[in-house]
Amino acid sequence: MLIAGPCSITDKTQAFKIARFVKKQGATCFRGGLYKGQNHPIVNGKPEYLGIGNDGLIILQKIQEEVGLPCVCDAQTIEQASNILISDIEYLMIGARNMDNLALLRSVRKLYDNFKCSRKIILKRGPSATIDEWIGAAEHLGGPDRVILCERGTVHFDRTPKTRWRLDFVGVAQVKTYYPNYKVLIDPSHGSGDRNLVYNLSKAGLSIADGLMVEVHYDPDSSPTDANQTIDFNEFKKVVTLYKETTNGRKYQNKH
Amino acid sequence: MLIAGPCSITDKTQAFKIARFVKKQGATCFRGGLYKGQNHPIVNGKPEYLGIGNDGLIILQKIQEEVGLPCVCDAQTIEQASNILISDIEYLMIGARNMDNLALLRSVRKLYDNFKCSRKIILKRGPSATIDEWIGAAEHLGGPDRVILCERGTVHFDRTPKTRWRLDFVGVAQVKTYYPNYKVLIDPSHGSGDRNLVYNLSKAGLSIADGLMVEVHYDPDSSPTDANQTIDFNEFKKVVTLYKETTNGRKYQNKH
Amino acid sequence: MLIAGPCSITDKTQAFKIARFVKKQGATCFRGGLYKGQNHPIVNGKPEYLGIGNDGLIILQKIQEEVGLPCVCDAQTIEQASNILISDIEYLMIGARNMDNLALLRSVRKLYDNFKCSRKIILKRGPSATIDEWIGAAEHLGGPDRVILCERGTVHFDRTPKTRWRLDFVGVAQVKTYYPNYKVLIDPSHGSGDRNLVYNLSKAGLSIADGLMVEVHYDPDSSPTDANQTIDFNEFKKVVTLYKETTNGRKYQNKH
Amino acid sequence: MLIAGPCSITDKTQAFKIARFVKKQGATCFRGGLYKGQNHPIVNGKPEYLGIGNDGLIILQKIQEEVGLPCVCDAQTIEQASNILISDIEYLMIGARNMDNLALLRSVRKLYDNFKCSRKIILKRGPSATIDEWIGAAEHLGGPDRVILCERGTVHFDRTPKTRWRLDFVGVAQVKTYYPNYKVLIDPSHGSGDRNLVYNLSKAGLSIADGLMVEVHYDPDSSPTDANQTIDFNEFKKVVTLYKETTNGRKYQNKH
Repeated sequence: MLIAGPCSITDKTQAFKIARFVKKQGATCFRGGLYKGQNHPIVNGKPEYLGIGNDGLIILQKIQEEVGLPCVCDAQTIEQASNILISDIEYLMIGARNMDNLALLRSVRKLYDNFKCSRKIILKRGPSATIDEWIGAAEHLGGPDRVILCERGTVHFDRTPKTRWRLDFVGVAQVKTYYPNYKVLIDPSHGSGDRNLVYNLSKAGLSIADGLMVEVHYDPDSSPTDANQTIDFNEFKKVVTLYKETTNGRKYQNKH
Repeated sequence: MLIAGPCSITDKTQAFKIARFVKKQGATCFRGGLYKGQNHPIVNGKPEYLGIGNDGLIILQKIQEEVGLPCVCDAQTIEQASNILISDIEYLMIGARNMDNLALLRSVRKLYDNFKCSRKIILKRGPSATIDEWIGAAEHLGGPDRVILCERGTVHFDRTPKTRWRLDFVGVAQVKTYYPNYKVLIDPSHGSGDRNLVYNLSKAGLSIADGLMVEVHYDPDSSPTDANQTIDFNEFKKVVTLYKETTNGRKYQNKH
Repeated sequence: MLIAGPCSITDKTQAFKIARFVKKQGATCFRGGLYKGQNHPIVNGKPEYLGIGNDGLIILQKIQEEVGLPCVCDAQTIEQASNILISDIEYLMIGARNMDNLALLRSVRKLYDNFKCSRKIILKRGPSATIDEWIGAAEHLGGPDRVILCERGTVHFDRTPKTRWRLDFVGVAQVKTYYPNYKVLIDPSHGSGDRNLVYNLSKAGLSIADGLMVEVHYDPDSSPTDANQTIDFNEFKKVVTLYKETTNGRKYQNKH
Repeated sequence: MLIAGPCSITDKTQAFKIARFVKKQGATCFRGGLYKGQNHPIVNGKPEYLGIGNDGLIILQKIQEEVGLPCVCDAQTIEQASNILISDIEYLMIGARNMDNLALLRSVRKLYDNFKCSRKIILKRGPSATIDEWIGAAEHLGGPDRVILCERGTVHFDRTPKTRWRLDFVGVAQVKTYYPNYKVLIDPSHGSGDRNLVYNLSKAGLSIADGLMVEVHYDPDSSPTDANQTIDFNEFKKVVTLYKETTNGRKYQNKH
């Protein structure tokens, strides 16, 4: 899997422009966040950025239909999860900050069980979760038949102005070795906080993980969220080249 | 404040026995969890322990009325928070795993604003939250007029079989110095995982924080949750002696 | 023990001025570093600050004789350790960066054994050492009859521009509980990096540890090293007041 | 570079057997430790294992001459460093525990400067060192013309019985991006503590780093040190296959 797209969907034009580009290059899924929030309710004197919300659901639907890319969208509440499911968006994502939110995990599981839904859920690792805790959260959602894991960095003592979290490749290797039924992706955007590192981390990630999730924007600096870690179109082309050299990428090319 | 009680309320007899004891010794609040969960849905072949749930609300109500101790109870969902508020339980607590759950923080804030509720909310620090992120979460709930902070340990490289988290006293000192409008408690039970360390950490905690939250049980080993970190009645007496030597404790004694 | 003094001794006047002041207030030992160094060999275009070196040995000798305060000085090599021992400086200190330097620990042990030296060695905890590794290092030096431990902060994910390390009070409590033969000090200066936090951390430290080591200067901002974490004379007076309220401090006052 | 060999050299037969095997497979250097030590001076009632010491220097010399593999050996003291240099062993290594040992770094630099020695020094990253501190240590030794960096894992909150340290691939990417003059190796043995993870981490490592250092033994369980993280001959063959698929490996094959 090569999942690409902006951190936040800001409007239909932005979303389609990015979706069409990443599709053309060879991405297999489109990501775009609808429900956002910031550490403080007031940031630089303005209310926190909350995202486009439910208005974005139809944008993602149309990207699936018109661009032909299955979409990934994360939910922080069961209402948002229901909306995503009802809107036929292919992949629900549970973000890192909610990996420990057992109430959400349990109600999402019930939702999927009740609808006999066979779609996959992408579960990010919490920034302070051990591998055992991460697997436990995946079991709360229904286990390896339903869950795709995504490593997005854990807390670490070495911080730079950009780097809040660091990808844990040992953790990925532990999943591949000790929990081989799970697929695991790597998110080099959150996992470094620094767009200059995304290419190299994608390279290392693709060599052992089952895919990548990467934040891409035609004008990264204009992103309302995660600007520092979002790569531009040129850099994304290089990441796609890496992807196409991997087994997954080769299979994907053969099919398309 | 000296908040004491079991990790989980298992039945009325257990709760009253502990509440009466800690009240008699000098505790100022009673704690007891109703809504629980474990890392894995199945633990040692059995479904995870989920807590007594809503049935415990009336137990806490009666402890407030009959024992005369205000109670603390944590919520993981807005429904649980509403139940706690409607049941007139004095303190709502947001646990460490939900400090990052912005959706919950925002809906609890609305709940309290709508009811013009002047009660306090205890907000635990997330195990990977910086002080800035913790303060941000407190602002999401309404700031220092509504929120009492509680440090309960963060992740650390030095782990023993018992110790999963370590109390961060530098963080407490930062709150006292840079955010002096906030009250901050220390939870030496979660913050060490080890009942043998609770006394010494209570001593250090009482010297700089505004109070303690500590897990107490007449038979700690029988606790369904947090057994290792729960102290018995004798050990609690020693913690109370410490508390009574502090300024807060002296004020409390004068009033009683 | 209340050990106080500058991070680095820069000249005789500076050292005596601080030693006389801290002695008068009630400190029981004087600290002052002779052998320094920085992370990079060139810092802001200038060679790293290396400290006054062996020339400071006689200053410390004279402070012991004329001011009447036993001195603490750290060594990074066996030659420096020998010089400190031969100069009759009371306490040799092994700094955090050398706790893992087994070759140094072994040769210092031989030196002390060969001289049948009964003086104490202060061993700081390495910034990434577990309690077990710290105790192991103390055993390499000769165990609790020879070694006084000093907690000075470990690495942590929550960093501010000042705070590189955070005091680990759980670690101190573990030493007091599981290794009761060891004395353990707290260094709130290195353990917070922030002079505004030293008073509160001293308070918490004195409540459970056997003493304090604190960096003091009449003009902290002029210190060539550790300026941010060095307190001034007024702040030190407040720390002494705390110390005198503790058991150790009361014993000290009775003797003087 | 593909550096392979046992953690500790125990005797000539062991060293030659491993050296001949790894040479035949395609390793470009042989590693073998002579100077060892353990966290505690007494381990399970016996004195700590100290390694073969200076007696091993001639073994390494002969491996260079007779097997034709340049050797790597780490020093903890300047005397050991001199012995290694005088014995014509190609690579001196400074281990993780000594990255912060500025006195050692400075005296090694002088040694190399005085001898106008153009050999390379391998500098491991300390387990709590930031990238900036690691680069600073490299500058103390003489900078990128003399130093090859080796990432071997840093402390992390997620520990298993085997895993004490975790490889930091973000750190490696930072070196490649921000300090491109440095070569950087990855050590998946120390960086995971678990031989079952070495293959996958080697794969990720080879994709972005300049080489690997890996612990290999014909009977890993018999190693006096690092047994858990040492791979056997079969597993090493798989690592070599990875290596030969990389650019470095292809260059190496063309030359041989």
